[in-house]
Amino acid sequence: MSATIIDGKELSAKVLDEAKTEIKGCMIRPSIAVIQVGDNPASNSYIANKEKVCSSVGIYFRLFKFEDGTPELSIINKIKELNNDEYVNGIMVQLPLPVQYNEKRLLNTISNAKDVDGLTDINVGRFVNGKKSLIPCTALGVMRMLDEEGIEVSGKDVVIVGRSKLVGRPLATLMLNRDATVTNCHHLTKDLAEHTKRADILVVAAGVPNLITADMVKKGAVVIDVGINRVNDALCGDVDTAEVAKKASYISPVPGGVGPMTVAMLVENVLTCYNAKNSK
Amino acid sequence: MSATIIDGKELSAKVLDEAKTEIKGCMIRPSIAVIQVGDNPASNSYIANKEKVCSSVGIYFRLFKFEDGTPELSIINKIKELNNDEYVNGIMVQLPLPVQYNEKRLLNTISNAKDVDGLTDINVGRFVNGKKSLIPCTALGVMRMLDEEGIEVSGKDVVIVGRSKLVGRPLATLMLNRDATVTNCHHLTKDLAEHTKRADILVVAAGVPNLITADMVKKGAVVIDVGINRVNDALCGDVDTAEVAKKASYISPVPGGVGPMTVAMLVENVLTCYNAKNSK
Repeated sequence: MSATIIDGKELSAKVLDEAKTEIKGCMIRPSIAVIQVGDNPASNSYIANKEKVCSSVGIYFRLFKFEDGTPELSIINKIKELNNDEYVNGIMVQLPLPVQYNEKRLLNTISNAKDVDGLTDINVGRFVNGKKSLIPCTALGVMRMLDEEGIEVSGKDVVIVGRSKLVGRPLATLMLNRDATVTNCHHLTKDLAEHTKRADILVVAAGVPNLITADMVKKGAVVIDVGINRVNDALCGDVDTAEVAKKASYISPVPGGVGPMTVAMLVENVLTCYNAKNSK
Repeated sequence: MSATIIDGKELSAKVLDEAKTEIKGCMIRPSIAVIQVGDNPASNSYIANKEKVCSSVGIYFRLFKFEDGTPELSIINKIKELNNDEYVNGIMVQLPLPVQYNEKRLLNTISNAKDVDGLTDINVGRFVNGKKSLIPCTALGVMRMLDEEGIEVSGKDVVIVGRSKLVGRPLATLMLNRDATVTNCHHLTKDLAEHTKRADILVVAAGVPNLITADMVKKGAVVIDVGINRVNDALCGDVDTAEVAKKASYISPVPGGVGPMTVAMLVENVLTCYNAKNSK
């Protein structure tokens, strides 16, 4: 037995095609503004990819790059200016920020209506309280992959490794809202394998290369690898894909899995903001 | 072996004594306003108990009781009036509301600074995002019981049965923030016993009498019963306490467990609001 590969590139191409068609009909182009502080190489590469994808579907992409050391107030003022700019639909602050910046304050300066990363207090509260809100892209991307493959979530034992606000936590809420039994593991979990071995659906977002080996996975499980690690200049996830694929029923690879889906969900979130504004 | 009984009455008495001493030093009394709609007998009894406990520590308690059928706008206007009343520190809407009322709208009318049940979108978002916020009383009560008994949470396998916004969900966040490995179960969980049996700490908030029997509990586990059910005019929880106590290391009974702690945490939340206002 060998797992079906969940092809994030192919699935995202479908989402992006639909977005492109929709945007062709827009008189004013949907737009996104990305705030970057410093020159983190991984961030540079993520942002370049976002720009490429957004531009390819017709979203007007702007990067506001600040030197590390720029006063926080200057960045806050830029965000406020973008909040008030009616031609800006989505705003995101690329994380991580250099440590001296107050991440929570910067994120919460973003208008809730433009918060395409879904990280402001109000968006998180609305989300957890079951109301319409913007939701973090990676978590949305994972759900979309499962949905597109027709994988049922309700009643399933879902184990999520990682508890970040961008992936682990929002994904737990999404899964719980869809009636899964959800376990959140992390680096302080006593016996990680004990949990991963009983997962019907295993989502790994730990940032540890090869954390999940074949002996830690149940036969027939669905395995979604959210890790993005650079090892010897190559990208790899948190899962030993080659070996786990022999046991799993579905597996998403890195690269070419959740990554492309995340950017596709960013495009969808920009369109959500755009449409909410223009339907007012 | 027989479990140590976690005596919620005794623990809450300690909290209430401290509150009473603190309130004795206040020139203006801390105050709470409770909104009730309709005449649900269980709500009447909960409210009567809140009034008794609040009054006993010196909190000024007022009940605004509306007939079922009162226009929602009248209730919203009352909440707004209370929001603007500088002598009102805490406001809560007794749940459940009659079905025709928009619970989310009513709850979100409450000022975030007076939201002693911790249910507004902003308080939930701040809480999940790791910021200072008001947190639902029952979830706080469970954590306090564990803390007072010196029960370590970090690294433990915590299983929570129930996913309500008042108990299951906020408790999962509190436990995760304290480094537990957290599983949220509910009525659609495939094999509940499989999960409960591996719990170091088992919290049950399902509202199903005797849902948890001794065979579903690991030897030495800590068992917290949040259920409040009325069976043949007697109160009981969700746990078969007599039998489970023979296997557990700690167990909280119903009545006399989480219930009194919940009201004690309400008193603390009123004081938190009072002190935040008066330290401005």
